Amino acid sequence: MAYAPKQPLQVKEVVIAPPQAGEVRIKISHTALCHTDYYTLSGQDPEGLFPCVLGHEAAGVVESVGPGVTSVAPGDHVIPCYQAFCGECKFCASGKTNLCGSVRQWTGTGVMKADGKPRISELDGSPLFHFMGTSTFAEYCVVHEVSVAKITKSAPLDEASLLGCGVTTGIGAVVNTAKAEAGCTAAVVSVPLSPPPHLLPSLSPPSPAPPRPLALALHGTPAAAPPQFGIGTVGLAVIDGLKMIGAKRIIAVDIDDSKKDLAMTWGATDFFNPRSIGDTSIQDHIVAATDGGVDYSFECIGNVDVMRSALECCHKGWGESIIVGVAGAGQEIKTRPFQLVTGRVWKGTAFGGYKSRVDVPRLVEEYLQVRPPDPRHP
Amino acid sequence: MAYAPKQPLQVKEVVIAPPQAGEVRIKISHTALCHTDYYTLSGQDPEGLFPCVLGHEAAGVVESVGPGVTSVAPGDHVIPCYQAFCGECKFCASGKTNLCGSVRQWTGTGVMKADGKPRISELDGSPLFHFMGTSTFAEYCVVHEVSVAKITKSAPLDEASLLGCGVTTGIGAVVNTAKAEAGCTAAVVSVPLSPPPHLLPSLSPPSPAPPRPLALALHGTPAAAPPQFGIGTVGLAVIDGLKMIGAKRIIAVDIDDSKKDLAMTWGATDFFNPRSIGDTSIQDHIVAATDGGVDYSFECIGNVDVMRSALECCHKGWGESIIVGVAGAGQEIKTRPFQLVTGRVWKGTAFGGYKSRVDVPRLVEEYLQVRPPDPRHP
Repeated sequence: MAYAPKQPLQVKEVVIAPPQAGEVRIKISHTALCHTDYYTLSGQDPEGLFPCVLGHEAAGVVESVGPGVTSVAPGDHVIPCYQAFCGECKFCASGKTNLCGSVRQWTGTGVMKADGKPRISELDGSPLFHFMGTSTFAEYCVVHEVSVAKITKSAPLDEASLLGCGVTTGIGAVVNTAKAEAGCTAAVVSVPLSPPPHLLPSLSPPSPAPPRPLALALHGTPAAAPPQFGIGTVGLAVIDGLKMIGAKRIIAVDIDDSKKDLAMTWGATDFFNPRSIGDTSIQDHIVAATDGGVDYSFECIGNVDVMRSALECCHKGWGESIIVGVAGAGQEIKTRPFQLVTGRVWKGTAFGGYKSRVDVPRLVEEYLQVRPPDPRHP
Repeated sequence: MAYAPKQPLQVKEVVIAPPQAGEVRIKISHTALCHTDYYTLSGQDPEGLFPCVLGHEAAGVVESVGPGVTSVAPGDHVIPCYQAFCGECKFCASGKTNLCGSVRQWTGTGVMKADGKPRISELDGSPLFHFMGTSTFAEYCVVHEVSVAKITKSAPLDEASLLGCGVTTGIGAVVNTAKAEAGCTAAVVSVPLSPPPHLLPSLSPPSPAPPRPLALALHGTPAAAPPQFGIGTVGLAVIDGLKMIGAKRIIAVDIDDSKKDLAMTWGATDFFNPRSIGDTSIQDHIVAATDGGVDYSFECIGNVDVMRSALECCHKGWGESIIVGVAGAGQEIKTRPFQLVTGRVWKGTAFGGYKSRVDVPRLVEEYLQVRPPDPRHP
């Protein structure tokens, strides 16, 4: 439970009401911690509503469905998606975007469409807000049917949970938003911030086999880099996507040198630390190192100054910069318009441009094709 | 002659030296006044060099060529192009951009590539800078061969001259940069500023038949709108391009109501004056009037606040904003990154994305196909 911004999370018993029309109640088997949960808890999210149950990167099993629900049934394995896909609204029908608008006005205000109220409450009945239409930091959550991606039962739910946000976002930024092509040069600008430990709840000791991040599994787990908070899943997933499409050069940028080995293991060809390049700006450093700049850059942290660096390290004439991170309330990006007039393109991505209910099941299938053997999931 | 920023232009006799290796001397038959000439004269152009001969939107006849020039010969009708196209440099070879880099370092510093010196001088031999590699406000100019577009002799040079900048830029912004499609909705945000009369030179009285702007000729001359400085050629050319590709709705935006008739004649379906909409911002006004925003917007004046409005009047999920105008030195564009993360794209264009030597001759041919009969050019 998040009762207020900047306050520690609390472990409490709450009521998750039965699903109403068009709703699905999911028993969450695994949930991950995404930087966006911390972002809202930090008070920087202009849409943040308290008290609420955070969490939006998860997997689980359908427990019950409300009237009219036809696409899933109890027992189905699913990923609850913070980005819906209805297939019918103006956005879905356009074919140009994944930003379905069918339930946005309710998920953006922490309630459900059927009655404009939440399905989460304290034991005394006081209502609690939903978060991002998901609220997966609980053993059950109620979501709109249009936000439920049904996945194959052969996928391990711990690993699949990461396709609910981070991995999907990073790979999609490369494949859907940038549409990067083989042979390209790219910079992945990612300076992950860890949530201060005091904001995390006191939990019982971790189980002996903590879930491995999905992206790690794609290439095996490097012994030197155990899973940890703030590992930079989105940045690593972007690197993974770039390697997948055959990028020639992948420059990882981070102020933390301890990220270098992990980035290189994932497929980065270079690692630049902006604090180890003297008085040069990171954009000038990258432009010099790449004979004019990169073809694509990805900002993965939500820092508006880093977004500017990412744009300005792009090559004149064709470089495209993709904003993946989410900035704090009221913050603005800036640059000289000459950067765009001379051919650079500034874009952003949400959920990697993937259409959740349609694409996530396919991504899970594709993941199973490349997944290495794992004794935990024979 | 422009001797210094903010000083009136002067009519003087100067020397235009013969072309050296790889250079072409052109007898200018017609030159137009573009806002960019005024922009540099105003002192806002960080690359502005004085004293110089301004002018970059013109047409003429090749008078002589330097050693090694093979693509044009004396007598050829040509348009001198401020954007070169060599076909061989990294930019040209990429196929992704029109921003040829073959002579940029010399045209950007007001000199010629062969010897790093200008071909323009005072009668006493003092050197004068070239401007944008063209300097067409003189009876002759010397340009690099890679900057010369050879056009058909059947095209009237007065009309063709406008394809040297404004019309090409506006149409190309629609066709090449936005790649706008039939049925789209667009906003053309254009608030043309006229050069103050005191900065213009005293010329002899105009000839009885002043050249008509090319874009005007495409649709006939509206009686109520005689050619004038600050007529907004780029904005009108964008409207023309949008009409050409079959846009469903074209919203012209200008703070000068006297532009309305002209904009509607060109093909605009709506005219919004930001000063006549109450307390609403122009972006909110456009979003409300278009059920969520336009598919494409074009900023045609070089004002960074207008660039922001143009981006933010685009539709969530897919709207693209194209910066066509050139902003003053040091000025910056700003917006919340959320605008991009939710699917808007920010781009810019130079010379409308057209590859000058390759595309301008074809544009002149296309113009002749649609040009109405004109008794002045039987």
